[in-house]
Amino acid sequence: MTDLLITNIGELTTNVDVPGNPCGTITDGALLIRDGRVAWVGRADDAPGVEDTATEVVDAGGRAALPGFVDSHTHLVFGGDRADEFEARMAGVPYAAGGIRRTVAATRAASDEELRARLTGLVAELHAQGTTTFEVKTGYDLTVDGEARLARLAAEVTPEVTFLGAHVVPAEFEDDRDAYVDLVVGPMLDAVRPHARWIDAFCETGAFTPAETARILRAGTSAGLTPRVHGNQLGPGEGVRLAVELGAASVDHCTYLSADDIAALADSDTVATLLPGVEFSTRHPYPDARRLIDAGVTVALASDCNPGTSFTSSMPLMIALAVREMGMTVAEAVWAATAGGARALRRTDVGHLGVGARADALILNAPTRTHLAYRPGVPLVHEVYRGGVRQS
Amino acid sequence: MTDLLITNIGELTTNVDVPGNPCGTITDGALLIRDGRVAWVGRADDAPGVEDTATEVVDAGGRAALPGFVDSHTHLVFGGDRADEFEARMAGVPYAAGGIRRTVAATRAASDEELRARLTGLVAELHAQGTTTFEVKTGYDLTVDGEARLARLAAEVTPEVTFLGAHVVPAEFEDDRDAYVDLVVGPMLDAVRPHARWIDAFCETGAFTPAETARILRAGTSAGLTPRVHGNQLGPGEGVRLAVELGAASVDHCTYLSADDIAALADSDTVATLLPGVEFSTRHPYPDARRLIDAGVTVALASDCNPGTSFTSSMPLMIALAVREMGMTVAEAVWAATAGGARALRRTDVGHLGVGARADALILNAPTRTHLAYRPGVPLVHEVYRGGVRQS
Ligand SMILES: [Zn+2]
Ligand SMILES: [Zn+2]
Repeated sequence: MTDLLITNIGELTTNVDVPGNPCGTITDGALLIRDGRVAWVGRADDAPGVEDTATEVVDAGGRAALPGFVDSHTHLVFGGDRADEFEARMAGVPYAAGGIRRTVAATRAASDEELRARLTGLVAELHAQGTTTFEVKTGYDLTVDGEARLARLAAEVTPEVTFLGAHVVPAEFEDDRDAYVDLVVGPMLDAVRPHARWIDAFCETGAFTPAETARILRAGTSAGLTPRVHGNQLGPGEGVRLAVELGAASVDHCTYLSADDIAALADSDTVATLLPGVEFSTRHPYPDARRLIDAGVTVALASDCNPGTSFTSSMPLMIALAVREMGMTVAEAVWAATAGGARALRRTDVGHLGVGARADALILNAPTRTHLAYRPGVPLVHEVYRGGVRQS
Repeated sequence: MTDLLITNIGELTTNVDVPGNPCGTITDGALLIRDGRVAWVGRADDAPGVEDTATEVVDAGGRAALPGFVDSHTHLVFGGDRADEFEARMAGVPYAAGGIRRTVAATRAASDEELRARLTGLVAELHAQGTTTFEVKTGYDLTVDGEARLARLAAEVTPEVTFLGAHVVPAEFEDDRDAYVDLVVGPMLDAVRPHARWIDAFCETGAFTPAETARILRAGTSAGLTPRVHGNQLGPGEGVRLAVELGAASVDHCTYLSADDIAALADSDTVATLLPGVEFSTRHPYPDARRLIDAGVTVALASDCNPGTSFTSSMPLMIALAVREMGMTVAEAVWAATAGGARALRRTDVGHLGVGARADALILNAPTRTHLAYRPGVPLVHEVYRGGVRQS
């Protein structure tokens, strides 16, 4: 593999933490890629000479470059869609069609080929929009074999697979929740574990209680998975407290937080992952990112791409919404969509462009990262490099 | 030119008005294109036979199709950008850098080649996002020769050129507004007129008074241009009343409307053009589209693409914002972004796919137009046809 030097980068966001420059921004930067990794990064004027080597040189033309987006929360393996439910919700019309359970029915009915076609289509969409690392959850089958199937399909496209048997209690267990939790922590966990890295539970009124959540996450931990939590989305609750206690990598949503929740997060290694696509698509209030950041909490942005409450895969839109609606600066939002996502997945090889990082980088059709918020909805990704390879 | 039959369209939005079906939606539709125009439209089962002809057949694979977007309000000819001003505004930091006048300075300093490069880049961006007809305003030079230059450059990319000498009073006329208005209605109008179809004025406190606006629009009308108005954006005012009185094709912004304004619009041929990109990028309140539509006003959606208050060219995002923030149904928003824009430009050949229309059509990577709002930020335009020619 030839070395690759990307030079004449007008604004290079490295996320290499420098005091007073948390995005590690380099003006007029360059990036040397060797064997799929960042071999050198700095000012273009200081770049290693390339005259005598077989280095390929790419002139970024003064454009901005940044690490590929890390989308740490998606639900990409499912059947059907819920466009009609979305439309009814936007019109303020009651819609009694079953929410997650409706997608469960459509997913169970879909063949591997159908699910794989949908999944690979969505992955292509993520890639085209600059997402180079992403997590995928199970949770739309809720049977032993079915959850294993979803995890297996997800593992075909990413190593960041999350077992979310505790997404909702399926209809057939409505009158015996305990039996469902027994299934999740027993045979379902056994079947999914070989394909998964993470375990997740939806800790919320109407989903799983704090006690059920704790039992499920502890079982996952014993089986070698690391916990993450859906929590504090629709009201105050125990999700954040549990996530911190159980050493979760991330607690996601975080819309309704107490002062104690924020203090606990600030004192922990648990990332608060905010999902503004959900608030955009449901008209719920946005989480207060400013309050979290000011308290010292590590914040990530993710899409929550799913057919019910946030059917977007656009990390640039998440950045624009974070700036418009959640009190984040552009630098904070871009950091949260790259380095923050990496923290939420406990990955040190992505989310930054320091020496040794995977060469996952974007060149924007814009002179600065600010344009990601300043130009909402506009596809600004000019080129995507994954592992040092330019994507066509 | 070979005939082209696009068939297997899962949901075809024609905007051919049918009672109870204002978007003229056809399920399982087809479209026959001949000489760049729609020659036939209907159910795929009823499509004219193609066995014996040289018709090219495109299988849309069940995807949705609709007329190309008509963006009736943009400011695409300018120099520089104002990303720093945007960022300061989002952070709540005062920023005393001159607004429109700053873009005026950058535009005056730019060469024809620089302006043309920026303009053609933005036009490519519009096309890629499905906009097939668009208007472009002058207004960032505010000298006689300079405004003529902007109009000439705009006319290279669209027939819908608007003379907006009355964008703001330039700094050099600050102490003699009357002299500037004399210039606009005299030599500037004479110089721009050959390149323009429309005349516009920004009727707002801090811009032009109702009396100045009326004088300018009347002069434009006498010179053969048709009026349009920027009005009622930042507070109540006379913009709407004047627009209706002077027979403007459209009054744009319409955030602060009285009951009289709405009644006047409903009784007129003047379209209310809403520009939610501005509210998204400035955090001002969104206009109330619901109230307008319920009163019988014709509503259009446009991007207002400009470097100060709405640097987006994304008509899909305008649709998503209209549904999320402005009380419009998906059908109303899609109609407003296509047929509504055509009404605002008094064009009968675009904005619909009835027989005889220009064959400007989009195929979406989605089964229904609802996905334009349901999947915010995601580039869903699969194929664009302009005048019957597929764009690569
Ligand atoms: Zn989720
Ligand atoms: Zn405007």
